[in-house]
Amino acid sequence: MRLRNKKWADTWLTNHDELVITQDRATGLQGNWMNIFAQEAPIHIEVGTGKGQFIIGMAKKYPDINFIGMEIQESAIAVAARKADEDEAELPNLKFIYGDGAGVETYFSKGEVSKVYLNFSDPWPKNKHETRRLTYKSFLAGYKSILPAGGDLAFKTDNRGLFEYSLYSFANFGIKFDPKGISLNLHEDTEKMEDNIETEYEEKFSSAGFPIYQFLGHFE
Amino acid sequence: MRLRNKKWADTWLTNHDELVITQDRATGLQGNWMNIFAQEAPIHIEVGTGKGQFIIGMAKKYPDINFIGMEIQESAIAVAARKADEDEAELPNLKFIYGDGAGVETYFSKGEVSKVYLNFSDPWPKNKHETRRLTYKSFLAGYKSILPAGGDLAFKTDNRGLFEYSLYSFANFGIKFDPKGISLNLHEDTEKMEDNIETEYEEKFSSAGFPIYQFLGHFE
Repeated sequence: MRLRNKKWADTWLTNHDELVITQDRATGLQGNWMNIFAQEAPIHIEVGTGKGQFIIGMAKKYPDINFIGMEIQESAIAVAARKADEDEAELPNLKFIYGDGAGVETYFSKGEVSKVYLNFSDPWPKNKHETRRLTYKSFLAGYKSILPAGGDLAFKTDNRGLFEYSLYSFANFGIKFDPKGISLNLHEDTEKMEDNIETEYEEKFSSAGFPIYQFLGHFE
Repeated sequence: MRLRNKKWADTWLTNHDELVITQDRATGLQGNWMNIFAQEAPIHIEVGTGKGQFIIGMAKKYPDINFIGMEIQESAIAVAARKADEDEAELPNLKFIYGDGAGVETYFSKGEVSKVYLNFSDPWPKNKHETRRLTYKSFLAGYKSILPAGGDLAFKTDNRGLFEYSLYSFANFGIKFDPKGISLNLHEDTEKMEDNIETEYEEKFSSAGFPIYQFLGHFE
């Protein structure tokens, strides 16, 4: 979902360049991300972080992991980063990249990221837009190139068509499915919900009675 | 679902041994199934054919394919075969095996079967019963051993847990997912429904508003 343009976003982002890293600077940090975090810890990224509720929730819940939210929409990344900045919790383990999911292999070196999250990605339902879906094979190749062998991929969506397509794309790419890694109605799976951090979309669609689909797997 | 015992089943099956083939006789036919059909044609089997609505519907719709319904429950196979026998249509392209899905590699030789259907298989929801599920890896190995390279697997169920498990099991076994082969709500997919033959379960659960899950894939 495209947010309305925020007039304050550009200036705000410029003034918070320690929290929100531009694509150009991200490229320069390849292989050296540990230097910008206060702690040495595994890095988990969310590609398409939207308004940031998920990645902020994760950063609070797991202080021993470094998180990076990536987002290409200026208004969304500004809303997400401002939300993190204004949060009562200090979150030294959270950064943002104002950049494109197609660029991950230019931002990170092999094995620098331990886990990739995709949440409620744009479904691009038309066949001709298949290559824009964040679960299309070229994106999967990008994630693989920054993860170690066995690196994790976690994906949630409320969009049935995107989930059906993505299972095909994951299997076809050779991504390993985790045992019990698939849920076709996450919010009915009490055990899996214990670890769940909701996104804005998820709250909205789940409370309206729609199923949330989840996939957990790993690259070889 | 286990049917109530039918007192007439045993005698009826004995009297219709051209239509319903016992396990012992099936084993003797390995490599020679073409001899028992009126036509040379690809053979498609349904493992766990229940009361037979699907396989009878398929045999009517596709007269140029030979179909075999397999079922281990005596009452069910008797109901299915009697239904076929009493149907107004002559169905020389339909046979039944009163036998166990675990036995497929003893009934058929490699490549003798072109496609395997699994419909509304018993979900065996407890972890300790995983090995009994018709989508467990030992069963998949059985199907693979009777299919040619590229042979098809088609699976439908209303059971969410079984479908979640089966996608994992298929991917883990190396079964290839067909593009658009997954449907998480088959009866909402107009295009896919054009080819759909309903089972007894499917009619019941779908009309009650539950989603029907479908997987289409192929072995390497």
